[in-house]
Amino acid sequence: MTPDPFSHPIMGGLYGDREIGAFLGVDTTLQNMLAVEAAYAHALGQAGKVPIKVAQRAAEEIATCQLNLADLRQGMAVDGVCVPAMVRQLKTKLPDDLHVALHSGLTSQDVIDTALILSLVPILAIFETRLKVLEAALSSLIDQFGAQPLQGRTRKQAALPITVADRIAAWTRPLARHLKRLDQMKTDLLALQLGGPVGTREQLNPEIARHLAHGLGLFDPGSAWHTDRSALTDFADWLSLVTGGIGKIGEDICLMAQQGFDEISVAGGGTSSAMAHKANPILAETLVTLARYNATQLPGMHHALVHEQERSGSAWALEWMVLPSMIVATGTALNTAISLCGNIKQMGKWDGKSLS
Amino acid sequence: MTPDPFSHPIMGGLYGDREIGAFLGVDTTLQNMLAVEAAYAHALGQAGKVPIKVAQRAAEEIATCQLNLADLRQGMAVDGVCVPAMVRQLKTKLPDDLHVALHSGLTSQDVIDTALILSLVPILAIFETRLKVLEAALSSLIDQFGAQPLQGRTRKQAALPITVADRIAAWTRPLARHLKRLDQMKTDLLALQLGGPVGTREQLNPEIARHLAHGLGLFDPGSAWHTDRSALTDFADWLSLVTGGIGKIGEDICLMAQQGFDEISVAGGGTSSAMAHKANPILAETLVTLARYNATQLPGMHHALVHEQERSGSAWALEWMVLPSMIVATGTALNTAISLCGNIKQMGKWDGKSLS
Amino acid sequence: MTPDPFSHPIMGGLYGDREIGAFLGVDTTLQNMLAVEAAYAHALGQAGKVPIKVAQRAAEEIATCQLNLADLRQGMAVDGVCVPAMVRQLKTKLPDDLHVALHSGLTSQDVIDTALILSLVPILAIFETRLKVLEAALSSLIDQFGAQPLQGRTRKQAALPITVADRIAAWTRPLARHLKRLDQMKTDLLALQLGGPVGTREQLNPEIARHLAHGLGLFDPGSAWHTDRSALTDFADWLSLVTGGIGKIGEDICLMAQQGFDEISVAGGGTSSAMAHKANPILAETLVTLARYNATQLPGMHHALVHEQERSGSAWALEWMVLPSMIVATGTALNTAISLCGNIKQMGKWDGKSLS
Amino acid sequence: MTPDPFSHPIMGGLYGDREIGAFLGVDTTLQNMLAVEAAYAHALGQAGKVPIKVAQRAAEEIATCQLNLADLRQGMAVDGVCVPAMVRQLKTKLPDDLHVALHSGLTSQDVIDTALILSLVPILAIFETRLKVLEAALSSLIDQFGAQPLQGRTRKQAALPITVADRIAAWTRPLARHLKRLDQMKTDLLALQLGGPVGTREQLNPEIARHLAHGLGLFDPGSAWHTDRSALTDFADWLSLVTGGIGKIGEDICLMAQQGFDEISVAGGGTSSAMAHKANPILAETLVTLARYNATQLPGMHHALVHEQERSGSAWALEWMVLPSMIVATGTALNTAISLCGNIKQMGKWDGKSLS
Repeated sequence: MTPDPFSHPIMGGLYGDREIGAFLGVDTTLQNMLAVEAAYAHALGQAGKVPIKVAQRAAEEIATCQLNLADLRQGMAVDGVCVPAMVRQLKTKLPDDLHVALHSGLTSQDVIDTALILSLVPILAIFETRLKVLEAALSSLIDQFGAQPLQGRTRKQAALPITVADRIAAWTRPLARHLKRLDQMKTDLLALQLGGPVGTREQLNPEIARHLAHGLGLFDPGSAWHTDRSALTDFADWLSLVTGGIGKIGEDICLMAQQGFDEISVAGGGTSSAMAHKANPILAETLVTLARYNATQLPGMHHALVHEQERSGSAWALEWMVLPSMIVATGTALNTAISLCGNIKQMGKWDGKSLS
Repeated sequence: MTPDPFSHPIMGGLYGDREIGAFLGVDTTLQNMLAVEAAYAHALGQAGKVPIKVAQRAAEEIATCQLNLADLRQGMAVDGVCVPAMVRQLKTKLPDDLHVALHSGLTSQDVIDTALILSLVPILAIFETRLKVLEAALSSLIDQFGAQPLQGRTRKQAALPITVADRIAAWTRPLARHLKRLDQMKTDLLALQLGGPVGTREQLNPEIARHLAHGLGLFDPGSAWHTDRSALTDFADWLSLVTGGIGKIGEDICLMAQQGFDEISVAGGGTSSAMAHKANPILAETLVTLARYNATQLPGMHHALVHEQERSGSAWALEWMVLPSMIVATGTALNTAISLCGNIKQMGKWDGKSLS
Repeated sequence: MTPDPFSHPIMGGLYGDREIGAFLGVDTTLQNMLAVEAAYAHALGQAGKVPIKVAQRAAEEIATCQLNLADLRQGMAVDGVCVPAMVRQLKTKLPDDLHVALHSGLTSQDVIDTALILSLVPILAIFETRLKVLEAALSSLIDQFGAQPLQGRTRKQAALPITVADRIAAWTRPLARHLKRLDQMKTDLLALQLGGPVGTREQLNPEIARHLAHGLGLFDPGSAWHTDRSALTDFADWLSLVTGGIGKIGEDICLMAQQGFDEISVAGGGTSSAMAHKANPILAETLVTLARYNATQLPGMHHALVHEQERSGSAWALEWMVLPSMIVATGTALNTAISLCGNIKQMGKWDGKSLS
Repeated sequence: MTPDPFSHPIMGGLYGDREIGAFLGVDTTLQNMLAVEAAYAHALGQAGKVPIKVAQRAAEEIATCQLNLADLRQGMAVDGVCVPAMVRQLKTKLPDDLHVALHSGLTSQDVIDTALILSLVPILAIFETRLKVLEAALSSLIDQFGAQPLQGRTRKQAALPITVADRIAAWTRPLARHLKRLDQMKTDLLALQLGGPVGTREQLNPEIARHLAHGLGLFDPGSAWHTDRSALTDFADWLSLVTGGIGKIGEDICLMAQQGFDEISVAGGGTSSAMAHKANPILAETLVTLARYNATQLPGMHHALVHEQERSGSAWALEWMVLPSMIVATGTALNTAISLCGNIKQMGKWDGKSLS
């Protein structure tokens, strides 16, 4: 057991998603934070707040700075965020004449929130791809086995005959909606956070925001969203909708695999340390676990909506504690579902026996 | 204390929403269920499955049937849904020649899910109206007090001066997104559930679905959503996003009302049984409570996404236990926030003292 | 659908528990609140704070007062609790010379919390009885069917043969622990709440607390627990432990009832409106639903532990919204499990077929 | 942001608990798993199932085996647990004549559950110590500042004057209950898991269990608890009760620190990257975050109580995903609260101003 099943050296084999995980790891996070600071220096130059040359030099220095992790850790322990320590490190590195282009007018939240959004850009693209791959994998299963008869079951009891295609069509339907919602979410979610100390953009003219958003490839919503966490929480909702729908696939496969039903044959079943005959539906079970995991985490994000005044330290940090795990769990669920589809060797009752 | 704070004779005074509550009450629910059965009889006629006259007479008889509640309660206890008992009652009432137009090809879930959606139609309209009223109320507060100075506070500590307009703008921002999402949700949410016993629309031709959807004023998604609960759960997410954002308003007002801050003056403060001088910010506190209430309920809907096979008795019933309360809580939160805005007599530091 | 499945005229047939529900209904709640006020008048007399005759007469008047519900509802809406309105009603009824013995030194929370605890006394006794009845019912099933062979299943797949007794023993084991914990909880849970306006018992001498606790049959913990909600939350934990363990029984029975397994035969299966052959395991499914319902509600109580300063209006009210439903859900789960055991006609593979 | 805030190189500075974390890390977990296998070999010898010499040699070989992590990770991915891979590694290492003493009669769950319990033994001891240290730290604050006046506040509004001692006494009260419950829990929680493939201890005589429990320093409950997760979930409840009560301390301190109140002075306040004057109450906020974090995780454990048949792969794995984080969060909350107490320089209004 471990507080991090997703990156644990052993458990990560089942629960980890190295591709997604990398975008949430310390290296990418720091790189994104520096990217925000560098793009901000640029934007100050473009908006005429500092000389363009100063801005460019500052941006270069910032982007390539090697940060001291132990110092950032210590800063986190004292300040609750590592940005003050990071800015201090940058100040030490940058020549004095470049300090005017460093972080002036920004606040920690601008850097941390925007860095997170920068991580979400590639992550959303991966989710989109995997949803489409899963759709195709399910479609391929319909091509292969769709005509096979299957016992339709309601309330876990035998109901009327259906086909494998009917069952898989029900698995597939939510995926199109997820893709549509993903598209709808982007404008609000992939948005620059820029507000300054109390979220008012007081010392910042609109041009800076425009340049900064452009530089980072993000939308500029026209104001800070520092205390309006609804887009981020909406994203968390979506994550749990995705894993929930995939969890149904997993639960169905676990039930289909029951001896006596034998409605599915899956390669690569897990072995048992005690029973040589077993072929456990590990991947299918994992989909159920990840669905319930995300369902469990989700209210953490909703409680964090009660984000008081101009910044809530406690509500904001609660997001950090639950959102990244939800993202990785979703990535793993998609990968696992795709693998599982590839392992399926047969679906439906194929032995000519009539349905009960 | 009571298992139903929303309709409790005393607690309902604070937590109840009689307008919304009526659409979820037993009378409307049964009326909607009969409306589904009647419209289905009609649709069978329109699609040529039964003679049009038979369909019309059946529809009339069904729509005006007086149902026996005690029998439905007993049916619920045995069958887990009251539809079989309801159909038996209808059969007793309808002449034998009309039975062909009664429920034939439908299943309980078609009736119950669609009846719920019929309740949601007016409820969504009410939510839309209230969101706009709340937007207007906040806008009016900005007109009245927006220019007043206010101590901006981050991590609950004094940060930099802002204005009342800054604070209220942050409260307002999520509302526009809620309205946009409400609009986006409608196509998927206000959709006919029609699938028959195992969700395959086996005995039903597409025309029946088209006529039924038209008769009820709903969308026809082209297939059953019996096991795909993502639209309903997405709606629950939205409810909690709405109450979460309003909860922030409540929390902020509680904090502004603190003696020593005196950043707000609200009429109608609650009295204390022990301290005559108190004016408790009851409505503001209620907004926080309702936000955390909905955040608490939400995962129930997400766990119910793991809806196995062609119908899950246990997952489906879990929705019944949490969704209606979430809807009423949201209605109450909107009403309470609107009332609270109306009670505000002053905002900001207006006494000329400089901000710390 | 309804915001109160437990007392709904139809749904209550499956989810309601009238015996437990009565102790949480408005009549008992008001009766308990008056009982607290009356016992407090007595205690003031016994402790010599008011003349004993005055105390007795006040107690009698208080205990028999007919309260006006509409006025209490209105008071709730304004004050967030109905106690100030109730005290005003009592003041109107009581002759002026008795006012010294009325509520003086108490606060709303003392009355409401203690009234809740008075409801819990009989509820705990009912839970204890039902747990023992369920234990006996399971024991009787072992007597009847324990020797029957059963397919042991791990990860939903066939493992090794066990007996029905093995399965039922696993269902039974948590019950003894629940009974032990119930006993351990009593001292902390069945405790008088008495603190006065800010929980300090300032105007109250220890004798008053002693007499009041004695008069109400509760423990006196020696200080107020106004902001320490751990005993109440511990009780909520216990409720969800009970329904969780019973939920496992329900899930197992749903799986045993699957056609092709036929490991159990249960009378009284639910009928379907569409499929005449079905016998749905409604009671077993309900156990799963109630387990997940309580698991969903529980964090509401835990968030309410963050109960700021000397009284949190928002955290306290959150308890009101989730705890009573959890209590009724637990009562229903126990009753349903007992009924279900009584409906079981056969368990295990009894046809002589060898286990796979 | 990271899926593991507790061991993240930067965020771990605020959220990590290296002492507790070590007992949940991969090294200790594997060491404990080997300890179970070794003690089991011993127990087989002591119970006369294998020659005592063989048992001893096997135990030695097992205890000192260097496991290949990459292989265990791969095994986890396939089998859902790493035990089959571990046993294969051990088989390769052990001479053939010792194989009779290796894992024979055990199942993966016996090893994993018992290894977890072995981690809990020192963790419970640490919790006990820290709870007592926190009690002492609060008691010391009462000694220093208890007599200072403080504005009692209910519903966040000024109520009546209290003293600092009153406030701190309310913080302290839950701690004694936590210590009592910790003690009560031990018998059920620190219990050997031993059941074999389907939890029946079929191939195992009671003597083996007795020797194994003795060898590991655990209680033998007389049967497997493989599907009865109530003791473990009860422990999770306790964790959240602890962090919830500490969360109240954090919330109170955040409120006391508000400018204009100035009821507390805390050294080591966090700096801001944008506002030089700020001293943010980071540690206090963290306590609130951790309370809400554990409240969020808890229902995961309760949903996992619905643990079907003789082993649920999906429910069991859900425990792995939430319990370890809850344990570390609790450890961190205790440490943070103790540090925070040590940082307090002043409490109460000490400037002679009268209370409002």
